[in-house]
Amino acid sequence: MLFIKINAAYLYKLSSSKKTKHLLALTILGNNSAIPAYGRNPTAQVLQTNDENYLIDCGEGTQLQLAKYNIKKSKINKIFISHLHGDHYFGLIGLLSSMGLMGRTTDIHIHAPAKLEPIIQLHLDAANTTLPYKIYFHAITKEGEIANDKKITVSAFSVNHRIECWGFKFTERKKPRSILLDKVKAYEIPEAYYGALQKGENYTTKKGTIINNEDVTEPSSVARCYAYCADTIYDETLVQKIKGAHVIYHETTYLKDMEERAALRYHCTTIQAGNIAKLAEVEKLIIGHFSSKYEFLDPFLSETKEVFEKTELGLEGTCFKI
Amino acid sequence: MLFIKINAAYLYKLSSSKKTKHLLALTILGNNSAIPAYGRNPTAQVLQTNDENYLIDCGEGTQLQLAKYNIKKSKINKIFISHLHGDHYFGLIGLLSSMGLMGRTTDIHIHAPAKLEPIIQLHLDAANTTLPYKIYFHAITKEGEIANDKKITVSAFSVNHRIECWGFKFTERKKPRSILLDKVKAYEIPEAYYGALQKGENYTTKKGTIINNEDVTEPSSVARCYAYCADTIYDETLVQKIKGAHVIYHETTYLKDMEERAALRYHCTTIQAGNIAKLAEVEKLIIGHFSSKYEFLDPFLSETKEVFEKTELGLEGTCFKI
Repeated sequence: MLFIKINAAYLYKLSSSKKTKHLLALTILGNNSAIPAYGRNPTAQVLQTNDENYLIDCGEGTQLQLAKYNIKKSKINKIFISHLHGDHYFGLIGLLSSMGLMGRTTDIHIHAPAKLEPIIQLHLDAANTTLPYKIYFHAITKEGEIANDKKITVSAFSVNHRIECWGFKFTERKKPRSILLDKVKAYEIPEAYYGALQKGENYTTKKGTIINNEDVTEPSSVARCYAYCADTIYDETLVQKIKGAHVIYHETTYLKDMEERAALRYHCTTIQAGNIAKLAEVEKLIIGHFSSKYEFLDPFLSETKEVFEKTELGLEGTCFKI
Repeated sequence: MLFIKINAAYLYKLSSSKKTKHLLALTILGNNSAIPAYGRNPTAQVLQTNDENYLIDCGEGTQLQLAKYNIKKSKINKIFISHLHGDHYFGLIGLLSSMGLMGRTTDIHIHAPAKLEPIIQLHLDAANTTLPYKIYFHAITKEGEIANDKKITVSAFSVNHRIECWGFKFTERKKPRSILLDKVKAYEIPEAYYGALQKGENYTTKKGTIINNEDVTEPSSVARCYAYCADTIYDETLVQKIKGAHVIYHETTYLKDMEERAALRYHCTTIQAGNIAKLAEVEKLIIGHFSSKYEFLDPFLSETKEVFEKTELGLEGTCFKI
């Protein structure tokens, strides 16, 4: 599994490059909890493929952060809101308005708790605004698949927070096997059969000889998976829900000495996030949602690494290629 | 009339200084229209006295701008929202939430179009949040005085925009006359009469001699006035409404070659703003609400000055001591 950390400007190059065929990269736009502090913004992330920018939560100022990191609003077609605490969605109505002012006509799909829909409508009514594009609002009501397209399927899982709250799992679709061109030519297999070969089927020659699929194709790379665990109290039932994810984001609102306060507020500490990552056997843990009480973030990294070495700080503007 | 331009850090010193007895200063927090662009934020301003920070409009990111320029949220007790286009109020709910999270208990008064009240309520309900302080919502329904305190009276005036829109006039209360200490002592006027002297009354000695008020007091400085003209089409009826203001803010969404588009969108050009300032005979015009299509702002200043020399660019972080 390739895992590197790059900056957003480099990501922009990557996503435009023809060489990066199957881009899957996460950029952190905001990593602070509740009140913005020390220049840190409230929660927002964007998961990018070559075709789409999936927006995950949308705290106040997200549209400014998107501009700062050169991430195209026009490629955002699906927005996922975990819960209706302001630091996770107060930037949404501003983003939707700006998209309208910029002349967007492409539909947008919003997946979020049901109560968000009337809020959006009331804002639009107050401004006497009709957007030039259509919003499809999908209230999340149960766990399971909530969206899919050519490359990615998205499923929601409930997490344990003070109000209704959802995590999201983004999984690449299983890719077709790759044709070994020199081999299919040597066996003189007609091009018309390539599709069947990619699906894993064998080929039978006119003389009745069976050519094993494995001899003329190779498996594609593993379908990658990213899980966003939103805001949550320490809860080991989460482990089963995110199992199979290669990279996860898990909140660390507090350092380890604040476990009691964390529980009271339905949040987690560094050690607790590390535990979840360890139990879920993931390849990489990204941490964030840092409390406004902390100016410096280094202790978050060192503490979490005590439990789970493969941890990264979710610094704003950092892009994790998954 | 003292008029200087200072930076926000210096203002902070001024407002804390005992020497600046009657501070009245305006800081620009956001000067861009509609879509944030080139690092410029949507509309927000704060008018500061020694006691209070009056917040005028509250575009997305205002709470971050307040922090950036060291302006205390705790001294904001009255908020004035001109109209319900998002670039003038999408930062309000975030600010109110943060004030709650920071443990504010002091009441807050919001003066705004009526439709804002249910929007705030819906956001709070969605987050299952009860703020630790009380919001008094005052729907603006007609022109005239809408708020007052020891130092300032605020009146609203309607402006001509695509939706209901209000401008605000902040006027210092007429100050009491100043006692000339050497004179009152020479005439042996008892301290108990100082209050009456400050109101302009004469003093009669025990022997029946009348001491003229002008001999023992002097007039205080002129009560200053700032008018915020919000978003508006070119409309000369505005002149009468802002007459008497020493400093005004008037929008210049477009440069002079875009007069037609400005009218279509109920906005103004540089020349039009300059005309209003000239007709209203103000001492200073501050311009802002620049369209996102412009990267550079210099032409706004030079064009407006063609009509009205005493113009200043409303750059973010600039503080105008009125």
